[in-house]
Amino acid sequence: MSNLIAVDAGGTSTRAVVLTPEGVCRGYAAAGSGNPISSGPDHAAREVAGAVRSALHHAGGGGADGTTVLAMAGARTHASTDWITAALREIGVEGRIVLESDLLATFCSGAWEPDGYAVVAGTGSAAIRVRDGRQDLSADGLGWLVGDDGSGFWIGRRVVRAVAAQLDRRGPDTELTPRLLAALDIPNDASAGPDGDGRPEALRLLLEAVYGLRPIELARFAPLVFAAGADPIAESIVADARTALHTTLSAIDTRSVRGPAVCGGSVLGVLGLSVHGLSGVTEVRTVPDGAVGAAVLALRDNGVPVDRDVFERTRDTLAALRATAS
Amino acid sequence: MSNLIAVDAGGTSTRAVVLTPEGVCRGYAAAGSGNPISSGPDHAAREVAGAVRSALHHAGGGGADGTTVLAMAGARTHASTDWITAALREIGVEGRIVLESDLLATFCSGAWEPDGYAVVAGTGSAAIRVRDGRQDLSADGLGWLVGDDGSGFWIGRRVVRAVAAQLDRRGPDTELTPRLLAALDIPNDASAGPDGDGRPEALRLLLEAVYGLRPIELARFAPLVFAAGADPIAESIVADARTALHTTLSAIDTRSVRGPAVCGGSVLGVLGLSVHGLSGVTEVRTVPDGAVGAAVLALRDNGVPVDRDVFERTRDTLAALRATAS
Repeated sequence: MSNLIAVDAGGTSTRAVVLTPEGVCRGYAAAGSGNPISSGPDHAAREVAGAVRSALHHAGGGGADGTTVLAMAGARTHASTDWITAALREIGVEGRIVLESDLLATFCSGAWEPDGYAVVAGTGSAAIRVRDGRQDLSADGLGWLVGDDGSGFWIGRRVVRAVAAQLDRRGPDTELTPRLLAALDIPNDASAGPDGDGRPEALRLLLEAVYGLRPIELARFAPLVFAAGADPIAESIVADARTALHTTLSAIDTRSVRGPAVCGGSVLGVLGLSVHGLSGVTEVRTVPDGAVGAAVLALRDNGVPVDRDVFERTRDTLAALRATAS
Repeated sequence: MSNLIAVDAGGTSTRAVVLTPEGVCRGYAAAGSGNPISSGPDHAAREVAGAVRSALHHAGGGGADGTTVLAMAGARTHASTDWITAALREIGVEGRIVLESDLLATFCSGAWEPDGYAVVAGTGSAAIRVRDGRQDLSADGLGWLVGDDGSGFWIGRRVVRAVAAQLDRRGPDTELTPRLLAALDIPNDASAGPDGDGRPEALRLLLEAVYGLRPIELARFAPLVFAAGADPIAESIVADARTALHTTLSAIDTRSVRGPAVCGGSVLGVLGLSVHGLSGVTEVRTVPDGAVGAAVLALRDNGVPVDRDVFERTRDTLAALRATAS
């Protein structure tokens, strides 16, 4: 084994790491969405292979023949690696390709310990319990329509509905209204539109804009709740999101699995995780993504035990590479 | 003027009425979805023209040359009648075609008075205020993603999320779970599935079933809350829906517009309307659909004043026709 390859393939961006079996990261590169479910297999394969090729190049060239790890959402239900095999072979990456859960990669990005929890809230939301280094129970991650409580979509939907309710006289005034209308380039004009139903033109334009999006894109309005200051509506959405994520983690929390809760995702990074009343969580750690964890999983899947030393070497050498890459 | 034509074109069924300028209903027929927005213009035109042709036939044949009224959702925003003109001309319906709001047709199905309110909760939900026989203000009706509080979709979504939360250990047990799983032909088996994430197979099958539907189809699960007996989750969904519809009506309620609130839609029919604290609503009336109101609007749009006598004649002669039609 010379080079090992680890990929953290997300819905908006992908990170590829080239590392030695000792956990020294030697190459790093990022690319666009590498998730075959959300972006289509052809697009995802191009992005993943592109990131790996750049990372190999930065590592000084050469291929890789160990087990390659690809951490991504939906790894459990979409077990096939057919979509990516040929693209990796073409750039000299031989050997087995193993899919791992993005949540497990989040956990391993922040913990070398075998037991603990990971909680992610970005566009969606989910939590897992990790025992002996493997995911043994998960909670939520059920998607925008059925679950994803406290996620970016969940918050963004609440924002849109609160603003529409104000414009429709059904809900209280909120600071979210001028902010959402500005985000959508809609003039914040309360006068009635030409429709003749007595409602402001801004409401009609809001409906037109929102129904022109895919539902999941409402997640882009989540950050507005963090910028709205002391607005009671924004504050109640934030409080409810925090409670929802606490409930999700509570569902899998147990005294018999004690360890850190590793937090990931842009929304959770701002919300912060409450661990009040939980019995298994010993501390909270936050990571920017699953890149370190994908590298840790690549080491383990190649038979390398990852203790605290190896974990810290992997984490710190990757951080150094990323500092120069950006 | 011999025959006048009125059509109440809904998203699931369409009703056509043939009546005299005196308000005597002489022909009636029903057909499938006549809404060009939800069903496509070709399908809608076929259903509307089919219903009108049958109603004319039952009325003893002949065409119509007055103004034809078509009451439908979206009448205000989709002003064109191009999709239906040719199909009506073909069956002898000449004259102008006027689109009217389905909510105004609901109001006129239950009230000859010039002022009042209409509230509808079926798949969606909305309310209007009527002044001098015309809609002067509306509330909600903003669609499943942005509004429709208390609607069938709104309730059905809550049902699905409550059941998923129970199966995911995040929410309390609810009687809705066995009922929803039975409705979807999913075995109610709490044992873990083969996925290895520790969650019941029923949850995976629920996700598969729900994400296989168009979101709006979640409305079909709304009736489950009315059948779930003394279940606290079902009861809280029902209470919240009632509150939401009260809030919608409150937004347009005013002391200066006093009159009946006419209720329509399958969900509101079961929920019942609370008018606590409202200042303009004098009484609550419930109608099965907008057929009588479409006929009333056809009379008015042809210059016939509709007082209490004409209204009751229209309503009662139509009821007699429908009793024999079914």
